[in-house]
Amino acid sequence: LQALENIQLDLEAVNIKAGKAFLRLKRKFIQMRRPFLERRDLIIRHIPGFWVKAFLNHPKISILINRRDEDIFRYLTNLQVQDLRHISMGYKMKLYFQTNPYFTNMVIVKEFQRNRSGRLVSHSTPIRWHRGQEPQARRHRNQDTNHSFFIWFSNHSLPEADRIAEIIKNDLWVNPLRYYMMGEGVVRSWASERQTLERPSCFRFWIQ
Amino acid sequence: LQALENIQLDLEAVNIKAGKAFLRLKRKFIQMRRPFLERRDLIIRHIPGFWVKAFLNHPKISILINRRDEDIFRYLTNLQVQDLRHISMGYKMKLYFQTNPYFTNMVIVKEFQRNRSGRLVSHSTPIRWHRGQEPQARRHRNQDTNHSFFIWFSNHSLPEADRIAEIIKNDLWVNPLRYYMMGEGVVRSWASERQTLERPSCFRFWIQ
Repeated sequence: LQALENIQLDLEAVNIKAGKAFLRLKRKFIQMRRPFLERRDLIIRHIPGFWVKAFLNHPKISILINRRDEDIFRYLTNLQVQDLRHISMGYKMKLYFQTNPYFTNMVIVKEFQRNRSGRLVSHSTPIRWHRGQEPQARRHRNQDTNHSFFIWFSNHSLPEADRIAEIIKNDLWVNPLRYYMMGEGVVRSWASERQTLERPSCFRFWIQ
Repeated sequence: LQALENIQLDLEAVNIKAGKAFLRLKRKFIQMRRPFLERRDLIIRHIPGFWVKAFLNHPKISILINRRDEDIFRYLTNLQVQDLRHISMGYKMKLYFQTNPYFTNMVIVKEFQRNRSGRLVSHSTPIRWHRGQEPQARRHRNQDTNHSFFIWFSNHSLPEADRIAEIIKNDLWVNPLRYYMMGEGVVRSWASERQTLERPSCFRFWIQ
């Protein structure tokens, strides 16, 4: 058993080294992507309605966006998905909004990270709805709000199985242009051709 | 839009580079751990009943192991958790058994990996139960088998939320000695003291 314990200590040392090396590599690529992402941000901000179009054109996200969400998304000016730099796994998505008649937040954030026991947990900015605009208050009037981007946003019941978060992080955010373009008649064939290409597995490294 | 497309191409190049770098690093640490794991294997094989004890002492796994599973686990000679080397995320756990009265397999494997669309999927070796030993056939006789390690093993309905697989991979496999020792009166205080220490986050790098 003593020999076994010594091996465990050796393994633990390797694991600590591995943890540090992976974190270093993750930070290096965050750094490498930054200038491109900043330029992308800048360009997108000059294309009105870019994000609402990209969201609505995504076949797996659009089903979550009801007509009222769509109205709200017209005030969406920016989306950012960021790795948490200080830990091995974790990220947050930030949605920036213009002043709008629905809620007072200018930015809402949903964050995913592992807690101490290794379980994935999520939390999000409480949305400060204007009076009468809360999805709950509106539900009895309009069944359409039963599926809603904002209900998903504020739901933290099963983050491990949160497909929507994964798609936003690993697909929409990785190449929003692809989805923005999907509506354009001229480039439709080009876009759909690109879309059917097998997505390289490296996309999953976007956010480690 | 042309500028945006160029930036996307630049980002894609960074992502491909990142994917390769992470895979290289992962392989490097698989390599570094190997000699320690081989020695650990060898020592454990000379401690009869090591794995059944480690499994049963783990507070979060033992609840899954019913009395019949416990009998079956007495034939368990080895556990191995291995990264899939060729892809960024994916692993398999192998359980080796001696000849036993329950099933004919000498080794059963449960594997987790991302499919092309990025979804985590699992599959496992079909267990070739001896006639009358199938958990299904026994269920009406013994309600105890409703929770069962082997029912979990063959269940692939929600791999993203598979806590048991995560615990085996990131905790039991990382330090089985800790759980093997937990039953020992003499070292109980030592073991539980170690156990309550916050687990360093690097453990999550064990299997990337």
